[in-house]
Amino acid sequence: MSLLEETIAAVRPLDESAVAEARDRQDIMTKPRGSLGALEDVSVRLAGLAGTCPPELPQPAAVAVFAADHGVHAQGVTPWPQEVTAQMVANFLAGGAVVNAFAAQFGARVVVVDVGVAADLKPGPGLLSRKVAPGTADLSQGPAMTREQARQVVETGIEVARELAADGVRCLVTGDMGIANTTASAALVSAFTGRDPAAVTGRGTGVDDATLTRKVEVVRQALALHRPDPADPLGVLASVGGFEHGALAGFILGGAALRLPVVLDGVITGAAALVAAALAPAAIEACVAGHRSVEPGHTAALDHLGLRPLVDLGLRLGEGTGALLALPLVQGAVRALRDVATFDSAGVTDKDADDRG
Amino acid sequence: MSLLEETIAAVRPLDESAVAEARDRQDIMTKPRGSLGALEDVSVRLAGLAGTCPPELPQPAAVAVFAADHGVHAQGVTPWPQEVTAQMVANFLAGGAVVNAFAAQFGARVVVVDVGVAADLKPGPGLLSRKVAPGTADLSQGPAMTREQARQVVETGIEVARELAADGVRCLVTGDMGIANTTASAALVSAFTGRDPAAVTGRGTGVDDATLTRKVEVVRQALALHRPDPADPLGVLASVGGFEHGALAGFILGGAALRLPVVLDGVITGAAALVAAALAPAAIEACVAGHRSVEPGHTAALDHLGLRPLVDLGLRLGEGTGALLALPLVQGAVRALRDVATFDSAGVTDKDADDRG
Repeated sequence: MSLLEETIAAVRPLDESAVAEARDRQDIMTKPRGSLGALEDVSVRLAGLAGTCPPELPQPAAVAVFAADHGVHAQGVTPWPQEVTAQMVANFLAGGAVVNAFAAQFGARVVVVDVGVAADLKPGPGLLSRKVAPGTADLSQGPAMTREQARQVVETGIEVARELAADGVRCLVTGDMGIANTTASAALVSAFTGRDPAAVTGRGTGVDDATLTRKVEVVRQALALHRPDPADPLGVLASVGGFEHGALAGFILGGAALRLPVVLDGVITGAAALVAAALAPAAIEACVAGHRSVEPGHTAALDHLGLRPLVDLGLRLGEGTGALLALPLVQGAVRALRDVATFDSAGVTDKDADDRG
Repeated sequence: MSLLEETIAAVRPLDESAVAEARDRQDIMTKPRGSLGALEDVSVRLAGLAGTCPPELPQPAAVAVFAADHGVHAQGVTPWPQEVTAQMVANFLAGGAVVNAFAAQFGARVVVVDVGVAADLKPGPGLLSRKVAPGTADLSQGPAMTREQARQVVETGIEVARELAADGVRCLVTGDMGIANTTASAALVSAFTGRDPAAVTGRGTGVDDATLTRKVEVVRQALALHRPDPADPLGVLASVGGFEHGALAGFILGGAALRLPVVLDGVITGAAALVAAALAPAAIEACVAGHRSVEPGHTAALDHLGLRPLVDLGLRLGEGTGALLALPLVQGAVRALRDVATFDSAGVTDKDADDRG
């Protein structure tokens, strides 16, 4: 069995008894029932994932920033030159980007994974060189990658998750870098959700009206050309995806198979999560949606996956920044489940004690 | 000049040149312009407050949990017995509450301030004993407190802010504990915003329909009895407020006068912030709305104050828990402004460089 099939087979639903135990514990903690809102659900999910209540704290965390370039850049879908992908990778490695600032503030490690940057990157600490090819082919003219490359890059993502876990990481955070990757994301989201390209294509890092119109048209053309079948997730990825999407899908599958929580970033991760969900639906139960980006395709992906984002602050940066903002919330949710006293143990009167019989 | 008048006089608007410098810096940091959304505004606000760009990191932080009881409890506005206030204070001091778990996770200190608990509390580490009286009088029958008590408790809040600042704290976080205090909050919000009691009174920590109806009626009666005048903020506080509301208003004023950021919790703090804003409008510029609670009065207060909350996860717990969840976001926003490289310094191509001439 290949690494991919083995990983898919290892993805299991949440442990129902740990879920029930966590729900019960939330109800006897010294607070009004339900008063922690969505954070109660996060803590319950992580208990179910761990298969024990309370689960361990999801720390230390690491954000994996998967970087790649896109042949569709040639269609003029973004005002940013393609070189910016490699330039930003250098910035990540030098510690100068927002992802570095957030990771430092929240105590997470940053790992940059080159899965397809269209430049030779100097090896160095913090960079994993796993290049599948120097960028995808132009998805509007033909398949973005071969089926074999699609499988290879998903398995690369699985391997990165495994390596981080072996290194003691207890919470995976997704990140991405790739000029033009919101175009591929829109194509993936449209392919998996069935929504019209106009409804799921956004301005990315800031395109004007004319470019947005062109971007929607490019996505529409690509879908007409490939007619991707959601029942064949690797085929969809190969047709219209990016290498970082494939690696992120594998990273999510790898985390889920290891029963580690995966905190999801924005639209790039959202599109990748659709690939992961199509390969192994239960993988999404390992995921916490970190934030909602302003990209319309992100909301479409979250809705399709049934995920509710924790942070909604108008970000549209990528890199893992939105997911990192949610990391303290996820950790706080578990910390509360672990540490908070019960009404009985603290000697606090519980108005709902009678309901429990 | 009294401490209150001195503090009000020290509250000044944001420093415009530091605000402009922070906005300019956000535009040359290695990220698309505006891509950090609401966090850019937070960083700009804190620069303006500090009067320098970048401002210092808002840490260490301390959450002050102001605790008090309420005479209006006698009207049956909550199913929780009044003793729970003192029981929860003991829980805070033992480290067993959600505020303790979040504070431990996010690196904040917890200080509990007894400004009016209706029980003798055992002195101990972490407890500041500043009791004005053992609970307010019943606001539905007469003034909740005297005008002198209102002034005293506001000054107590100012003093706590000063003491924490003197102790090296660089970010103030608001918290509260007081069974029945959402009733007083609703009365304050209605008095300052002019909205109908039915629109700003909520279920607090969980009341049934009959109790909610009674609660709205109690608030309506109290406003009819006192006819509080928003132009006389201490008068409004004395008529329908709680001791923790007064202390929180002072805490906000004290923070603003010291030019320290104040991260606001839910509806109790929101009601108190209306008092502070009425005393010194510019005090709100020192504030960051940590979260939006499910209490309708909180949204009314935030709208009136022009504040946008950072976290919106359906919490209704108080204690400072919602504000603490936002603390890492506030710190991350400033960390980014301080640490992120510029396009020039990092050698990254900026598509918008021409716009800057």
